[in-house]
Amino acid sequence: MNAARVLVLHGPNLNLLGQREPGLYGRHSLAEIDAALQTQGSQAGAQVQCFQSNHEGALIDRIQRAPDQADGILINPGGFTHTSVALRDALLAAALPVVEVHLSNVFAREEFRRRSLISDIAAGVVCGFGPQSYRLALEALLAHLRG
Amino acid sequence: MNAARVLVLHGPNLNLLGQREPGLYGRHSLAEIDAALQTQGSQAGAQVQCFQSNHEGALIDRIQRAPDQADGILINPGGFTHTSVALRDALLAAALPVVEVHLSNVFAREEFRRRSLISDIAAGVVCGFGPQSYRLALEALLAHLRG
Amino acid sequence: MNAARVLVLHGPNLNLLGQREPGLYGRHSLAEIDAALQTQGSQAGAQVQCFQSNHEGALIDRIQRAPDQADGILINPGGFTHTSVALRDALLAAALPVVEVHLSNVFAREEFRRRSLISDIAAGVVCGFGPQSYRLALEALLAHLRG
Amino acid sequence: MNAARVLVLHGPNLNLLGQREPGLYGRHSLAEIDAALQTQGSQAGAQVQCFQSNHEGALIDRIQRAPDQADGILINPGGFTHTSVALRDALLAAALPVVEVHLSNVFAREEFRRRSLISDIAAGVVCGFGPQSYRLALEALLAHLRG
Amino acid sequence: MNAARVLVLHGPNLNLLGQREPGLYGRHSLAEIDAALQTQGSQAGAQVQCFQSNHEGALIDRIQRAPDQADGILINPGGFTHTSVALRDALLAAALPVVEVHLSNVFAREEFRRRSLISDIAAGVVCGFGPQSYRLALEALLAHLRG
Amino acid sequence: MNAARVLVLHGPNLNLLGQREPGLYGRHSLAEIDAALQTQGSQAGAQVQCFQSNHEGALIDRIQRAPDQADGILINPGGFTHTSVALRDALLAAALPVVEVHLSNVFAREEFRRRSLISDIAAGVVCGFGPQSYRLALEALLAHLRG
Amino acid sequence: MNAARVLVLHGPNLNLLGQREPGLYGRHSLAEIDAALQTQGSQAGAQVQCFQSNHEGALIDRIQRAPDQADGILINPGGFTHTSVALRDALLAAALPVVEVHLSNVFAREEFRRRSLISDIAAGVVCGFGPQSYRLALEALLAHLRG
Amino acid sequence: MNAARVLVLHGPNLNLLGQREPGLYGRHSLAEIDAALQTQGSQAGAQVQCFQSNHEGALIDRIQRAPDQADGILINPGGFTHTSVALRDALLAAALPVVEVHLSNVFAREEFRRRSLISDIAAGVVCGFGPQSYRLALEALLAHLRG
Amino acid sequence: MNAARVLVLHGPNLNLLGQREPGLYGRHSLAEIDAALQTQGSQAGAQVQCFQSNHEGALIDRIQRAPDQADGILINPGGFTHTSVALRDALLAAALPVVEVHLSNVFAREEFRRRSLISDIAAGVVCGFGPQSYRLALEALLAHLRG
Amino acid sequence: MNAARVLVLHGPNLNLLGQREPGLYGRHSLAEIDAALQTQGSQAGAQVQCFQSNHEGALIDRIQRAPDQADGILINPGGFTHTSVALRDALLAAALPVVEVHLSNVFAREEFRRRSLISDIAAGVVCGFGPQSYRLALEALLAHLRG
Amino acid sequence: MNAARVLVLHGPNLNLLGQREPGLYGRHSLAEIDAALQTQGSQAGAQVQCFQSNHEGALIDRIQRAPDQADGILINPGGFTHTSVALRDALLAAALPVVEVHLSNVFAREEFRRRSLISDIAAGVVCGFGPQSYRLALEALLAHLRG
Amino acid sequence: MNAARVLVLHGPNLNLLGQREPGLYGRHSLAEIDAALQTQGSQAGAQVQCFQSNHEGALIDRIQRAPDQADGILINPGGFTHTSVALRDALLAAALPVVEVHLSNVFAREEFRRRSLISDIAAGVVCGFGPQSYRLALEALLAHLRG
Repeated sequence: MNAARVLVLHGPNLNLLGQREPGLYGRHSLAEIDAALQTQGSQAGAQVQCFQSNHEGALIDRIQRAPDQADGILINPGGFTHTSVALRDALLAAALPVVEVHLSNVFAREEFRRRSLISDIAAGVVCGFGPQSYRLALEALLAHLRG
Repeated sequence: MNAARVLVLHGPNLNLLGQREPGLYGRHSLAEIDAALQTQGSQAGAQVQCFQSNHEGALIDRIQRAPDQADGILINPGGFTHTSVALRDALLAAALPVVEVHLSNVFAREEFRRRSLISDIAAGVVCGFGPQSYRLALEALLAHLRG
Repeated sequence: MNAARVLVLHGPNLNLLGQREPGLYGRHSLAEIDAALQTQGSQAGAQVQCFQSNHEGALIDRIQRAPDQADGILINPGGFTHTSVALRDALLAAALPVVEVHLSNVFAREEFRRRSLISDIAAGVVCGFGPQSYRLALEALLAHLRG
Repeated sequence: MNAARVLVLHGPNLNLLGQREPGLYGRHSLAEIDAALQTQGSQAGAQVQCFQSNHEGALIDRIQRAPDQADGILINPGGFTHTSVALRDALLAAALPVVEVHLSNVFAREEFRRRSLISDIAAGVVCGFGPQSYRLALEALLAHLRG
Repeated sequence: MNAARVLVLHGPNLNLLGQREPGLYGRHSLAEIDAALQTQGSQAGAQVQCFQSNHEGALIDRIQRAPDQADGILINPGGFTHTSVALRDALLAAALPVVEVHLSNVFAREEFRRRSLISDIAAGVVCGFGPQSYRLALEALLAHLRG
Repeated sequence: MNAARVLVLHGPNLNLLGQREPGLYGRHSLAEIDAALQTQGSQAGAQVQCFQSNHEGALIDRIQRAPDQADGILINPGGFTHTSVALRDALLAAALPVVEVHLSNVFAREEFRRRSLISDIAAGVVCGFGPQSYRLALEALLAHLRG
Repeated sequence: MNAARVLVLHGPNLNLLGQREPGLYGRHSLAEIDAALQTQGSQAGAQVQCFQSNHEGALIDRIQRAPDQADGILINPGGFTHTSVALRDALLAAALPVVEVHLSNVFAREEFRRRSLISDIAAGVVCGFGPQSYRLALEALLAHLRG
Repeated sequence: MNAARVLVLHGPNLNLLGQREPGLYGRHSLAEIDAALQTQGSQAGAQVQCFQSNHEGALIDRIQRAPDQADGILINPGGFTHTSVALRDALLAAALPVVEVHLSNVFAREEFRRRSLISDIAAGVVCGFGPQSYRLALEALLAHLRG
Repeated sequence: MNAARVLVLHGPNLNLLGQREPGLYGRHSLAEIDAALQTQGSQAGAQVQCFQSNHEGALIDRIQRAPDQADGILINPGGFTHTSVALRDALLAAALPVVEVHLSNVFAREEFRRRSLISDIAAGVVCGFGPQSYRLALEALLAHLRG
Repeated sequence: MNAARVLVLHGPNLNLLGQREPGLYGRHSLAEIDAALQTQGSQAGAQVQCFQSNHEGALIDRIQRAPDQADGILINPGGFTHTSVALRDALLAAALPVVEVHLSNVFAREEFRRRSLISDIAAGVVCGFGPQSYRLALEALLAHLRG
Repeated sequence: MNAARVLVLHGPNLNLLGQREPGLYGRHSLAEIDAALQTQGSQAGAQVQCFQSNHEGALIDRIQRAPDQADGILINPGGFTHTSVALRDALLAAALPVVEVHLSNVFAREEFRRRSLISDIAAGVVCGFGPQSYRLALEALLAHLRG
Repeated sequence: MNAARVLVLHGPNLNLLGQREPGLYGRHSLAEIDAALQTQGSQAGAQVQCFQSNHEGALIDRIQRAPDQADGILINPGGFTHTSVALRDALLAAALPVVEVHLSNVFAREEFRRRSLISDIAAGVVCGFGPQSYRLALEALLAHLRG
């Protein structure tokens, strides 16, 4: 069996990780998180690619290329979680297993953050554990791909 | 009288047409649809330009140039149908006749797809007929421009 | 292959076409529209029957006979669009392809006109183009029956 | 100036007046009410025609003929008040002044009786005064036609 | 004591029973169901009359005559269940015990079928058991009339 | 039998009648309307007192004295119609028959004007006929007091 | 074929039957109702077991054992009807045919009683006929099990 | 530093794991899951206690004892997730870190499963990964307790 | 006249009083509150029994026995206030005067705490005064029983 | 320590106490209630001032002077409870402890009476006990001021 | 051209400015703000009159006199912003340009403060800048009157 | 003290200012507005940078760089006002004072324009005054930065 290939997508403002609001989002930079995910992936015999953008269109472009390059998608859609039908449609079209992840507990914030346009088309959701959310989500996705 | 000029706009994920989910969206590629629309246009003595983007901003940019280049707009806003006030505003500012078109029957899918931010500012709507939706919508728009 | 048979149904107040509110509904009478549809049908090798009633029950009666006489239904349910579960049930029971059509853009009028009890059980919807809506809808339905 | 012509329309179940639920609707039969309205009309130099039906379609048929026969419509839509877009559309198409009338106080009954699909297209509304509601409504309509 | 008299009313599309969608509504025709109800009635010493119409007005007309001819009403209002205030008003005016019956489980279908305009003025409701729903409802109504 | 005594109450901004927005509210001043009501009352053998205030509290004070001085209340609550529970409570405490009246058709204006906090505790409502609304409402109230 | 086995479940407060509010719930005790159901069952060649509890957990415990002991469930969930997702889940897991029954007409009481968390997963519903509701529901369930 | 102590709570119907609906919930029994969690805990130097009940009150009782016996709570509230304010209150009173876990993706099921009364008071949420949800949630909770 | 007998019921988590969240709920234990209520009762010539449970069913069981043992019920339903129709039904069946009491001000907390399923069937409500709420509520209930 | 000073405020229509609707509000006049509160206050070593107005503005004026004259406010806002943001703002600005009181049980009346604009800024609420509500509320407020 | 005349209206509780809650509303008294506005006005060649009241009726009285004395209205409706249809009606009748102003950011407070009954009939809105809100609003209004 | 630095952000379609819909948005081009703001800024000793984009991502990118280059943000989010959580998140992360500005009165347009995702995190809002809105907003922001 070939190595599982995972595309990790970070939505808007996640490039700021570690720089601002560390109390809410933790002290690790996105580069550090990406590096850790790649290490975790290689230890599990998987390839992990990472991509961040503040542009909804760029994320959609990237998702559209995913079916040729990845077996599953791990996505933190950031603010697009609650507003982007286009992102949902891109994920539906990609037809790959998706795990949704959030650093903060979206259920403990503004009311409008309680509704996700992604969750019901994802395999599962992990939220609230800071950078560890990513690690757990990758574990879950890899197990899902193996299962 | 000069030839009518029509701008055909395709929103996010429509570049995937023919590649994925053919059961839902048909087997024709977007290039084939565009070519068919241009043929249909030239047979009716009209010029048809086509543009697709996954980027809301790129669609808005394109709409802003439309008043100098087109007499009417045929738009399949894709996932932006339900979420983009900015696209609506661009169409309002362009002040050109608009026909809204969808490949699938948006009323037979998720509840949130029943509300369009474009329909009430369009001349009319065609949905549910796959690629033929475009052909009918172009007919309607050309007749509207002549009427 | 036999000629496709289409039943065209017009709901309440559509018998007034051409007589009142021409600004909203156009100057063509319903008889003219029906004649045009029959011509369009015969040109496409199809038989078109037309029926109008202000009586919900009469429309239901007519739909119940449709399975023996028609291969598809083109319906402008008029005011029943938004209120008649019984009409919906009749169409469901007929189990024929349905195209919903409206002369005016129902999305640009009163809020209660935005919800149709028919759209989600139809193959597709055409609205906003005046009498031309019917012509496009017939095209769509005939293509659907051939497809 | 010619005599004003008024069409009085009674919706479903109003033919039962005087027979059942006199505590709610009064002891006068519909024939008595119609006779009183005609007397009131002739005293005011107006012609009054009356029509009742339990059939929405029959009421619509009658409204469609009204523009040739009447200058204004006095209507008690009964249960159709809250459910019939088709009746609303017929009244809109007739383009005659309309007065809405109810025997009982619709605001003091079930919640769903508080919303009328007719009121906002009527000149005015009278409700709650039993048979007298009709008399007052006719006065109002005649004054409106003279005004 | 005289024989109880029951009026059985079937709303729109129930005349199709046995012909279409047998998976949902069963294989028995309405005539068979009516015959069974009359047999059941006569065994219980009751007279059973049956009436079906696709016309709301015809059902209302029939209900209005009921007080002189029946002691109770068993009604399957079909699609009118969710939309007809006029039918509700007719039943209220008849002032006879009413049992509401449905072949299918209306609670397991579209959301709008969960609200009935009849249930709260009925003695009780039976739904979901196909033709047997009628039999049980007649039992319940006869017991109610005896009780 | 003694002469019926009626208290006519005008809510906020009705003192402006005849001065502003005559297209909406008519050309008659409130004094003229009051005089006409008093004439109408005396012709019917009734006493009519009138009171206007822009102050909710002053209207409540006046209603509280009404039981000793009046047999019924005719009230145009103006903007308080939709917002004043205190006015409703005063009318409930007065325990006199109430007729609610509006010059304009409140159902054809902003959505929030469709809900009245008074209508369900009134005997009836008259609206939309300009100053004539008052005349009809007084007729209705006097008949109610006699009835 | 073996005798059908039916589990009858009564939710909270149903142990009070016959003792309190006889006007609403009838004069028969729960023991009498259970005995009647067992007699009715044995006459139909079926075994009927009955269980009542005021404890949601006890009802769930009992439902969990049902698949080994019963072929169908007749349940009056009482107040849990409107609030217990856990009970719904237990019934879903049991994967047995369910008939929901209520003594009173839940649609004619408080608004919150109109929504059941059980109805859409039941085969059917019987309500409003007092103790007879149980008898009819058992008939329906036995027929369903035979069907 | 002492070993972290974790209380694992399983709500109603989770005792059925592995027996029913394996397609939805997996093939592992609850005992197997508990054993795996205890192994995972001991490998991480933590003590794991597990408790399941179909009784809301029993879960609350257990949570109340938790502050003396545990440093954190991992809870799958099952059907109580959406309905139990009392469980929420117990967790608030315990004042221990809580991780909410679900086997299935609650966002892809009935609408009412989208709202949790627990999520906003939890540190984080894991759902959709079957038994692995528990493993990830325990990892998250242990990291939280160490962090 | 005999001594009034009062049953004091405490819902879930109230057994924790004095131990946790003293800032919100005060420093007195439930035993102290119960003792104080019994003292207050005996000073007023009344018997006071107290019962607490985290189990909804246990509270219902206790309420069912109340009619033979008590003349009135003072209840702090805790988290069941907002969710338990079964508790409401038990209180309705008991048909004793009920006073609802809360330690904290439920209106100043989460939105879902603003709706009580008990308040509208209680004689009155006291909330927000900590343990004193109980004392005042007992005063109110005793006066009610005397009045 | 100085004597606590309490301002008792009565909103609209409370001056009618004892005169009208004694079944709902009791037979005691407001003067009697005020006298009883002053006696109760002086027995507890507190000064009680009382003020009633039907004018929202007069109540606000009075509240604005309160900080110099009182240590706490006991208010029955009457109909303003549900509608007056201005009264809420005045109480917020006064920054004194507030107890809200109602004679009747506001939760057992019209739906709109269930929402108070005052409750969430009050220390607590007492309602439903007639004049005794005031006595209990004063006890609560005095204890609060002492606490 | 004559000097522009501006009426500045302050709603309830604004007379407290500078005395209470300076953190929220600033340290300047209303007299200081009024003086500053008059200075600002005279520097711009405009006359500024100021009026404050806690009485809705007094504000309406003042607005009614405005058309003879002012060319535009600057209003901070305070708590009436969200509740007073009567104030809205007075401003509509005055038919003068209106600028709405708030000291605090009403969008960052309670949900009910997000809806204004004035904003949609105003020329514009300024909020959130403390006393400077008034200065900017006056600038805007004067420019509007000149424009 | 250093000169204040302000970043002015214009959202989608604002680059069209002066070209289209001058009746709604004024005759000044965006370049003219920007120039005027820079002049205004330099007169006040502040630096003003301006940026417009139709791309949500480009605006977010620009906001992310703002903390190093600006002390405050003046933003007209255009159509993104009502839909972009990502923009809100970017502004939250920037942690700079924000003033929201609109040329038109958003409260007097479509219902969906009444809700802003930015207002509650801004210092204040100015809307409705055309280009002058910007000038006033800059004044407000500069005062805020100085205050």
